[in-house]
Parts: sequence; C-alpha cells; structure tokens
Amino acid sequence: MTRELLDRIVFETFSNPFLDQKHDGAVLSAQGKVAISTDSFVVSPIFFKGGNIGELAVNGTVNDVAMCGGTPKYLSLSFILEEGLSMQDFIRIAESAKKAADKAGVQIVTGDTKVVEKGKGDKVFINTTGIGPLHPKADIALSRVSEGDVLLISGPIAAHGMAILSQREGLQLESEIRSDTACLNHMVMALLDRFGKEIHLLRDPTRGGVAAVCTEIATDRGLGIALREEWLPLDKQVAAACEILGLDPLYVANEGVCCILTSKDIAAEAIEVMRGFPEGRSAIQIGSVVRDHPGKVVMESLVGGRRIVTPMLGEQLPRIC
Amino acid sequence: MTRELLDRIVFETFSNPFLDQKHDGAVLSAQGKVAISTDSFVVSPIFFKGGNIGELAVNGTVNDVAMCGGTPKYLSLSFILEEGLSMQDFIRIAESAKKAADKAGVQIVTGDTKVVEKGKGDKVFINTTGIGPLHPKADIALSRVSEGDVLLISGPIAAHGMAILSQREGLQLESEIRSDTACLNHMVMALLDRFGKEIHLLRDPTRGGVAAVCTEIATDRGLGIALREEWLPLDKQVAAACEILGLDPLYVANEGVCCILTSKDIAAEAIEVMRGFPEGRSAIQIGSVVRDHPGKVVMESLVGGRRIVTPMLGEQLPRIC
Repeated sequence: MTRELLDRIVFETFSNPFLDQKHDGAVLSAQGKVAISTDSFVVSPIFFKGGNIGELAVNGTVNDVAMCGGTPKYLSLSFILEEGLSMQDFIRIAESAKKAADKAGVQIVTGDTKVVEKGKGDKVFINTTGIGPLHPKADIALSRVSEGDVLLISGPIAAHGMAILSQREGLQLESEIRSDTACLNHMVMALLDRFGKEIHLLRDPTRGGVAAVCTEIATDRGLGIALREEWLPLDKQVAAACEILGLDPLYVANEGVCCILTSKDIAAEAIEVMRGFPEGRSAIQIGSVVRDHPGKVVMESLVGGRRIVTPMLGEQLPRIC
Repeated sequence: MTRELLDRIVFETFSNPFLDQKHDGAVLSAQGKVAISTDSFVVSPIFFKGGNIGELAVNGTVNDVAMCGGTPKYLSLSFILEEGLSMQDFIRIAESAKKAADKAGVQIVTGDTKVVEKGKGDKVFINTTGIGPLHPKADIALSRVSEGDVLLISGPIAAHGMAILSQREGLQLESEIRSDTACLNHMVMALLDRFGKEIHLLRDPTRGGVAAVCTEIATDRGLGIALREEWLPLDKQVAAACEILGLDPLYVANEGVCCILTSKDIAAEAIEVMRGFPEGRSAIQIGSVVRDHPGKVVMESLVGGRRIVTPMLGEQLPRIC
C-alpha cells in the first residue's frame, strides 16, 4: 500500500470538518472540566469473534473517558501498520472504527498513520486518545467509596478475554463466545443524569478483570469488598472455556462491562436504568463494601465457602486489548 | 521486565497530581478553543545523535499543537514495548521524555504501556497526544496565506533526517550530524504574542521536509512559492551527507524547525524575535508567495538557474520519526 492510498482511505472513511482541514492537528471547543484518556491497542488476533481491533480501540478509549465521568466527544486515532497488511483488512478495521465512533457519538478529529517493515510490528497497532467534557453532576473518585456502598455490574463478565483466548487456543467452543466490546458512555451518562453524585465510582474491568477493580478499591480505601458468586453474571460458554483453560473469570478482561459503586439507596433504580440499555440488560448487584476484612476482597462461593480474591500477579493474558 | 516494574518506572518518572490518581484517565480544565494533535513515533534507531525516541515523541507533538496556534499544556504518553528491551533503555527513554516535557512546559497527564512479544514490535513505539488552549491572538490557516507573504524558517534544515539516515547507513560523517529535535512552542508563542494575526501559517517541516510544506501551500492556495537556494540555511556536514546519499535537503525531515508565513511588513521583526531563542538563532527568510507560476514552487538556484520543486512521491525516508 502506498502512503497516498493509506491517507486517502483514512480521510475518506473518517471525513469530517476537523479532518478535512488536513492539518497535523485540530482545534476544538471546550468549557470547564474535560476528561482525557489514552490507550494503545495491540490485541492479537486483530479480528476476533464479536469485533476487531478498530472498534475495540474506539470503544476502549470511549469507555475510559466515560469512567472518568466524561462525555466522550473527540478522539484521535493513530495507526502503526506492518508492511504486508492487506488493504481489505485495513479498510475493514478503519470502517469498524468509524462505525463504533458514530455509535458512541464521538468524532475522529486528528490522526496519524505510520508504517513499519515486516517483522517490526504485528499487522496493526492502534492508539486512541479521547477527550470530552466532564458530566456536570459527576463526582467520581476512589475516595468517594465508603462502607455500605453496593457494587453493580452492567453485564456478564469475561466474554472479551475468553473470545480472544479461545480463538488463540483453537478451542472448539470458540464459535459461541463473542467479545463484549461496546461503548458504555450512553448508559453511564444516563446514570449520571439521573443519580449524579450518588454514583461514587465507575471502572471498566479490562486488564485484570473484576478482581483487579475490587482489589484496587479494597486496598486503596482500606475497606472490604464482599462478592457473592451466585450473583456474578457469567455465560455458560464463557464459564466452560474458563474451566478448560484453567482461568478464573473474575480475572479475565472485559471490554463492554462496567463496575459501578453507588449508595445503597439508589442501587435498585440504577439497575433499572442500566437495563434500559442493550449493554446493561443483565445489570445486577454483585457485591458490597463492608467494614469486615479491611483491604481484602472476599467471595462467598456457590457452595457456601468463602475465599479471598487476591490481586493478580503478573500479566495473566498478554495482548488481550 | 515485569508489568509492576514498568508501571513503577512510568509513575515515578512522570509523577504529578494527574498521574498520581492512577486512574485510566485524567480530568483537566479548559476554556474556549483547544488545539489537539496526535502522533505515533516509530523512529529507528531509537537512540540517535542529538536525541532519542522519548524526547522526539514529546517534542513532535508539542510542535504540532504549537503549529495549530495552541499552547501545548497536557500530553498523553503511550508506550508499545517489545519484549527484550532493556530496562536501562526504557528508563533512559522515559527520563528523556520527562525532561523534554519539562522543557516544553507540558504535563504528562495520562498514559498506557503495552508489551508485545519479541519480533512483533521493534524495541519501542510511542504515541503522544497533546492538547492546549489556542493562543487568543492566533488565526492560523492555509486560507490566510496570500500573495506578498514571506516564508521564514527558524533554523538550518535536514538535520534530523540526515542524523538518522547517516547513522543507519554508517556514514563516517555521522558523528558530526545531530538531530535538531527541540520544542518550538516557546518561540512560536512569542511570535503570536507579538504579531497575532500577522502570523498567517505555521508548519513544522517533518516528513517530506520544506518541500512538502511549500508544495502544500502552493497547491492549496493556487499561488506560487519562490524559494532562493542561497537563503536556505544548511549545515555543511548535512549538505555533504545529502550529497553522498543522493538526497535533496529540501525533502528531508526536520524535528526542530518551523516554517512561518507572515505579512511582509513584520518579517524582519519576526526574524529578530525568533533569533532571541536558541532554536531560532539562524532564523531567516527563504522565500515568498508570488502570483507567478500558480500552484508551483520554484527554487532559484545558487548558480542562477530555476527549478520546479515537485511534491515528493511515495515515502522517501521510512521510520524517520
């Protein structure tokens, strides 16, 4: 692929008044507090059941901005392509990114495309950086989590990680497991519109899964998190794949799920609001913040026992996003 | 290197109130118009005479924001590391990036580190996205360039590209040629403070060099650009390396130089202002915008002849930044 062709594909796919200026940057309007987040995506394989690296890169950063309490509005998009990538693949990825951006309501305002020699990259890496105004009612911080808060989750866990891994490992189940990659900003903004400061913390359990979110909160706040396994939403196929590969779904990455810490009073209503969105239709309470076992996450298992959920050591699943 | 160690190096090197929140994003303040730019850096080799990929990634995006007329203020920083990179190298790159950010007056507010297997990357790739408020007096646009404008340049051309290439090719001259990587925002902001709308266009001649900037302006505006070779600042060593490698310095990438289109009236004063900064000490007029030869860039050569500067075809120098 030539440089000119690459540029044409990018400009045609994402055409908007910002990009059409064809400058090395863009000028936006902003007022007040703005949330910003960046992520580089190196997922392998680049095409997987339920999505590809293009939409994942858009959704991932959109969600990170939303987890800060921001309304994602503008996105930068930067490709590092390995020589030999087919044009069809590049177009398919770019079009998926565009579709995901439209769905999330964000505009790609600036970008960059670099090419490296064969063997010096791996097909496609994508960086996205997102910005958007902080929701006026948002007051999201670890420090706002306190005893008595409840932990809600927007949907079934571990789908993204198991979609990638079962495809890599060639599991026969793979056809059944699809990544959950999705933008969560519309649902999150609806929660902030309705409940404002009653939403204490938002986290999307990507690398390290729900376990990483819970252990972070417990450690930082010096409070306990009590989880109930029976409440954990988990698809059967995903559970089976986890069992085969010896993985605990609590540690597996999600790309279309968020954890929400709220005051107890509004938990039931918040679940109702979430269930009004496709990405939140399985929303449920999975635990609560307790004074017992400070700094520790304890799961009450289906068979009645209790086990401590420890922080994950090392990087369990490389190149999952 | 383990994940924990990587994170510790990043957080310790760049520690500031934004990063210390250890969230997947940051919340900033902004008012009014904001400039944004993104770039992925894949330069090879990662260490070169005059700099390394860390400071290049900071300076490159700082300069892109400045070329939009923005005061770079916040930067995201995202690493893609290849397994096997030494910790010393990573620390050296991170520290250079931090030093460059301090010099430019920008804060690293959010970041990300991904690791790929050996042979799936090339030591280090870095993405930076920069944002900052538009200078209140800035009115920078291709459409503001008109006949009679003069083209100024802030310093000697082709140093970055030739530093990289002579190192790659093992030229004996290499010890003499250093990349010009530098932040230009302080000088550019001084120009905007003083001259406001009299500054019509700012461009940093990176990929494709000064030729790309000139042909872009000529093509877009349907005006001619007349360059005089005798005015072009070019170090002897750089000129010699270009000759050996058969390259025209006008097409070679710069990383610490900017082209400025101004009204004729303020050109001499603007040069004075630029010369007050180390990065602008060789500032000079190199050409002007003319009604003759519309859409074409014509260089009057040292020996008196005239030649047309054509747009570069293809990517002359891969992985130069």
